[in-house]
Amino acid sequence: MFTVEELVQYAKNTGYIYQGSEIYGGLANTWDYGPLGSLLKLNIKKAWRQKFIQERIDNVLLDGPILLNNKVWEASGHVAGFSDPLIECKKCNQRFRVDKLIHDFDGTDSDGWSLEKLEKYVNDHKIKCPSCGAFEWNEIRAFHLMFQTYQGAVLDKANQVYLRPENAQNVFVSYKNVLRSSRKKIPFGIAHIGKAFRNEITPGNFIFRTREFEQMELEFFVKPGTEIEWFKYWKQFAMDWLVSLGLSKDNLRFDDHKPEALSHYSNATTDIQYRYPWGFDELWGIASRTDFDLTQHQNHSGEIMEYLDPETNEKYIPYCVEPSVGVERLVFAFLAEGLSIETLADGTTRDVLRIHPALAPYKVAVLPLSRRDLSSKAEEVYHLLSKHFDAVYDETQNIGRRYRRQDQIGTPYAVTIDYDTLEDNMVTVRERDTMAQVRLPISEVVDYISERIKF
Amino acid sequence: MFTVEELVQYAKNTGYIYQGSEIYGGLANTWDYGPLGSLLKLNIKKAWRQKFIQERIDNVLLDGPILLNNKVWEASGHVAGFSDPLIECKKCNQRFRVDKLIHDFDGTDSDGWSLEKLEKYVNDHKIKCPSCGAFEWNEIRAFHLMFQTYQGAVLDKANQVYLRPENAQNVFVSYKNVLRSSRKKIPFGIAHIGKAFRNEITPGNFIFRTREFEQMELEFFVKPGTEIEWFKYWKQFAMDWLVSLGLSKDNLRFDDHKPEALSHYSNATTDIQYRYPWGFDELWGIASRTDFDLTQHQNHSGEIMEYLDPETNEKYIPYCVEPSVGVERLVFAFLAEGLSIETLADGTTRDVLRIHPALAPYKVAVLPLSRRDLSSKAEEVYHLLSKHFDAVYDETQNIGRRYRRQDQIGTPYAVTIDYDTLEDNMVTVRERDTMAQVRLPISEVVDYISERIKF
Repeated sequence: MFTVEELVQYAKNTGYIYQGSEIYGGLANTWDYGPLGSLLKLNIKKAWRQKFIQERIDNVLLDGPILLNNKVWEASGHVAGFSDPLIECKKCNQRFRVDKLIHDFDGTDSDGWSLEKLEKYVNDHKIKCPSCGAFEWNEIRAFHLMFQTYQGAVLDKANQVYLRPENAQNVFVSYKNVLRSSRKKIPFGIAHIGKAFRNEITPGNFIFRTREFEQMELEFFVKPGTEIEWFKYWKQFAMDWLVSLGLSKDNLRFDDHKPEALSHYSNATTDIQYRYPWGFDELWGIASRTDFDLTQHQNHSGEIMEYLDPETNEKYIPYCVEPSVGVERLVFAFLAEGLSIETLADGTTRDVLRIHPALAPYKVAVLPLSRRDLSSKAEEVYHLLSKHFDAVYDETQNIGRRYRRQDQIGTPYAVTIDYDTLEDNMVTVRERDTMAQVRLPISEVVDYISERIKF
Repeated sequence: MFTVEELVQYAKNTGYIYQGSEIYGGLANTWDYGPLGSLLKLNIKKAWRQKFIQERIDNVLLDGPILLNNKVWEASGHVAGFSDPLIECKKCNQRFRVDKLIHDFDGTDSDGWSLEKLEKYVNDHKIKCPSCGAFEWNEIRAFHLMFQTYQGAVLDKANQVYLRPENAQNVFVSYKNVLRSSRKKIPFGIAHIGKAFRNEITPGNFIFRTREFEQMELEFFVKPGTEIEWFKYWKQFAMDWLVSLGLSKDNLRFDDHKPEALSHYSNATTDIQYRYPWGFDELWGIASRTDFDLTQHQNHSGEIMEYLDPETNEKYIPYCVEPSVGVERLVFAFLAEGLSIETLADGTTRDVLRIHPALAPYKVAVLPLSRRDLSSKAEEVYHLLSKHFDAVYDETQNIGRRYRRQDQIGTPYAVTIDYDTLEDNMVTVRERDTMAQVRLPISEVVDYISERIKF
């Protein structure tokens, strides 16, 4: 597997991902998705919507604002509790998340510990600063993770708002409006895709942990008592989705949270972990959130969140199961999984990104063998194909280099226009993984490719 | 045409758009896009990407962060100059944008006036407070429109960042990386779709002016001297796109900015205006931005932004033409344009949203005539169709009401499963606008609809 640095370099060279604000020396851990990365993100979101919403009868989509009334975050518990324990070295001024510090020291999971318990552990075990080696810590404090800003003409407390740290609350706040206007019946789900912001103490590992990121969350509402069954269902559904898009089962695993490590609102939580270059780590969280959120919003807003079951006439606040995944972590996994250097029969090597065709930024490259004589015909082919899928046109350098370039960025098909094309209206279609070539009439290319890039 | 209030009510009832944070009394002018609105936004973005990027050889997409290095906004001029003139009534404390106040008073366009000139005009013409009628103003001040926040563990000046007020700067900052990795040649464009934030003094008119909104911007780079030709090209291209998606030419017009009203960076600017319920107003801005932005970034960053023309060997900083449109304003226009109440032959009326099929949230509704006997067959049909496009399943109430419901939300086709379907595998396909019905084999429905919803 490639190192993080190698992936960063690959992503920059090819146009998948650049450093954010690079010409100004960057900005913390921000990233820019280039012509390829922006299409990959779109394709990941499309594939998620397709299987989690479009092809199902039970789920609908919602798109709410990043700025919400502060009462939303009071009700959800974020204002009071959304913080990480922060410790600072007196000597070198480096800051660390205490739970990470302890975990890196001896593997202990300190999730849910009080600040006092964390402090005692650091002192009892004489954990030193990983940066300078000193054992001179400032007092541990809770560092709040929500970004704050002000809206309106006066920058006072009354106008202070937060950038949402998760998409889920958009769903809970609009639950009644969606239920009413969509006339859905339990069980049903409301999905939300959008940016979220968390003021992480230590962002890092390329696009794995960034302060600004994009979530895809489904809040699936069920009858109380059925939530564990649905929790298991969505665990498997998410895993199947990942495998169907080409991630190897060997690089994926469930990490079930132990009862004592569960959040206060959850009665079951699992992470699907992926094997990143630094080892297994979070990719997808699936949580059974009980009726915690809707009950909190009912208490804080006074709006009744009860559901009247039309079959049993029972009234209840629905339970909620939430699969939640970050788009950037999926980008990371699909690039890391797909990229390889292959040795060919003739002893030369090629870089090839073996990414699922549905995710590949371009489905097809259009390559005229001669720029001078064939570009007009090739442009005609490009315009035909690009009505159906994202395509790329390349007429520079020899055909071998152009194939390699498309292999490297994961384009599943390349269509070559040669001199015979002018006579017989046939083109050569080359497949990325096998490098096999077939000759087809131009009129059959759209169907040929469409058939093979389905998801 | 419907009033703004009627559109708000329609959007809420159907599930297009709800008030943001509604259960907590809302938050300023924020809005939630429901199951229909979220799909409409996706379809608008898809149609834009299709014609502005996918089907073209010259343009590519970029997806950059909302949080950028502050130096970006110093270079762009936003830190120094991105403000609106704000005036406050001493008596009732209402705040107004002075340019709006003057325009509403006598139609004068005060774009570009100094604060002193604005103040003199208000005093000379004794313009009163539109809210309470008093003529007791506080001094006019420049109100800054960028949202500010802090990132990192310390809330000090060094960690202060802005939420981007426009997408364009993402493109200029990454221009060199895109040019290098995409190997494009002038003329070519970089497009960017994403949220932007402006701390508007007076947001309003439903989704027309909101503090958080989504932009689709294309920065098209050209050789100096050719920019006016390209400016005209993109003006017409944008207009054609709107008309091809169903907006009437009568409801659209160009508003060319007079030379004295141009921004300092522009040598030509036009707005495409749409006839909203309150009259013609901005929909799409097209600006020839010269080399202002790239030159500013070259000066501030030290990065050379020159382009080496491979044909003439000339070096120059490219000029830039920018068509820029807000997704929400397009949502407004397409809903306002499409919604109508029709009187039918039998004297009854129906609400129908005559929206382009490519934009309609659902392409097809699947309706079993009997819930008890036909839902299993209907679900089979739903699963077949929903592999190809967004579909909706509805089995409640009589078929007439279900047709009306789909008419009202703009679903172009409805497929009805009846008792004969169980025998002959044929269904009735009804078209929204004509209400004409045809009977087709199930196996032909995907092609029948696909053919008719093309864009």
